Amino acid sequence: MSGTCTPEWIALDWGTSNLRAFAMQGATVLARAASDAGMSKLEPTGFEPALRTLIDPWIHDGLGAIIACGMVGSRQGWAEAPYRAVPCAPIADGLTQITMHTGQRVHIVSGLSQNAPPDVMRGEETQIAGFLSLNPQWDGVLCMPGTHTKWVHLSASEVVSFQTFMTGEIFALLSEVSVLRHSVAPDTWDEAVFQDAVADSLSRPERVAAKLFALRAGDLLSLTAPDNARATLSGYLIGMEIAATRPYWLGQNLAILGMNPQAHAYQTALSAQGVPATMVDAERATLAGLTAAHRQLKACT
Amino acid sequence: MSGTCTPEWIALDWGTSNLRAFAMQGATVLARAASDAGMSKLEPTGFEPALRTLIDPWIHDGLGAIIACGMVGSRQGWAEAPYRAVPCAPIADGLTQITMHTGQRVHIVSGLSQNAPPDVMRGEETQIAGFLSLNPQWDGVLCMPGTHTKWVHLSASEVVSFQTFMTGEIFALLSEVSVLRHSVAPDTWDEAVFQDAVADSLSRPERVAAKLFALRAGDLLSLTAPDNARATLSGYLIGMEIAATRPYWLGQNLAILGMNPQAHAYQTALSAQGVPATMVDAERATLAGLTAAHRQLKACT
Repeated sequence: MSGTCTPEWIALDWGTSNLRAFAMQGATVLARAASDAGMSKLEPTGFEPALRTLIDPWIHDGLGAIIACGMVGSRQGWAEAPYRAVPCAPIADGLTQITMHTGQRVHIVSGLSQNAPPDVMRGEETQIAGFLSLNPQWDGVLCMPGTHTKWVHLSASEVVSFQTFMTGEIFALLSEVSVLRHSVAPDTWDEAVFQDAVADSLSRPERVAAKLFALRAGDLLSLTAPDNARATLSGYLIGMEIAATRPYWLGQNLAILGMNPQAHAYQTALSAQGVPATMVDAERATLAGLTAAHRQLKACT
Repeated sequence: MSGTCTPEWIALDWGTSNLRAFAMQGATVLARAASDAGMSKLEPTGFEPALRTLIDPWIHDGLGAIIACGMVGSRQGWAEAPYRAVPCAPIADGLTQITMHTGQRVHIVSGLSQNAPPDVMRGEETQIAGFLSLNPQWDGVLCMPGTHTKWVHLSASEVVSFQTFMTGEIFALLSEVSVLRHSVAPDTWDEAVFQDAVADSLSRPERVAAKLFALRAGDLLSLTAPDNARATLSGYLIGMEIAATRPYWLGQNLAILGMNPQAHAYQTALSAQGVPATMVDAERATLAGLTAAHRQLKACT
């Protein structure tokens, strides 16, 4: 529940699956609210009611801007916030605006695009802006684990380039939909097994495709402990991603955005390669990014 | 429809999704029938009625054996036909027997297993036996494209070893379930695009994971023709499989079991590597394998 309060402005993290709202005073969170009204579940006309349901108790005469990031700004979202091409600062002036029937304005942060190789992001640009506002002058590579993990090269407060890996989605499809679902037990983990699989995959990434079915066959033949399949599968896939990104992060500062088990898996995999990575709270970065966007908006109006 | 006839024996190719039945006289097909009563749709008690529905017009007093291969012999099938461990001949005497309520006997061919690395097959062993009965003394590697593609090393009429790739299932999941489904158009193909993707993937297989999301992003940014995504995705995945199996088939005779578009994709990918491969009809191999099993059964009784 959101509760009544009189925020200066409202921050929205509005992704594919969820909507999270924050009643803000400057950079301080006064209250928070969330629902599962993600972009993928809404028709264009459904966004305003979904938002109103969540933030009505926070609306008052002196309310400033409502600032949103994420898939809400996609072509299938509330209003399309056109991509900005890298290299560029993660967020810029001139956010896409919507005026609600109640008169409040919602400002949507643009995603970023890259032409060669083709790539896009929506939502992560705000976290990057937040990370840079918390760590000014930071140069290096930011790893952003998720359904689609992003690796982002930052220099002089700009996004120089980035690359997206479908590792998270592929892990979910293999462990929940493919024939491996019978052999990958949920909620199991073995750190040593994971590390072995990462090392295996790093040394011969092209062999990963050959090893996946062994997770099923080893279980059918009672040769391998089903408890290990989850950590092995994750290690193979993350190992492959780390092999592919090595030229990208080698010799750079490295930070990982996230504190969840997936982010820790990336951190331990990189650490075994002798690569130390700073871990940063993702929600804190999102809020710092939306706060930076709010500050920029106020400065321009 | 199956039609009435008086076969000597009946051959069954009973897989996960389908049941195909053949009324046989020696090695000759007198009639055929099929239904979608695959193993995955049946309870243990459902197999006999599903079979009766299909083959009742063929049952007569002088009917000999009914011989089946495929997932019907799995633990979730009609009766478990235990795996036989390689190295071994693809089929052996002593098939698993079921007596139906009508008195007919159904004999199920065993699958093959391998301990290191763990692997299993069910159904392919019969096709291998058929391939060897059509090509006696053939030594080399047999590529059997499918949902789970098998690469099988044959020598002196035995299966020496084999390895399974989930390439077909991964292609289906990525093109039909993942975020790429929005960008991979069905029924499109471009041979040159496919060949380029295979070459790309063969030279740097570990980069495939990095390239998948570009199929979506390139489409979103209108940088790539959506018509090409299907051939590109297929080329990346098959290229990776060919990179992983290269040490396995290098310098060996190579044959591909299948004549469908998937089998042709493997053939053109290998041919671009300067590797000629003979293509063999899969159904013909299945029937030749079941016929070999029938011959063996008659010789033993």
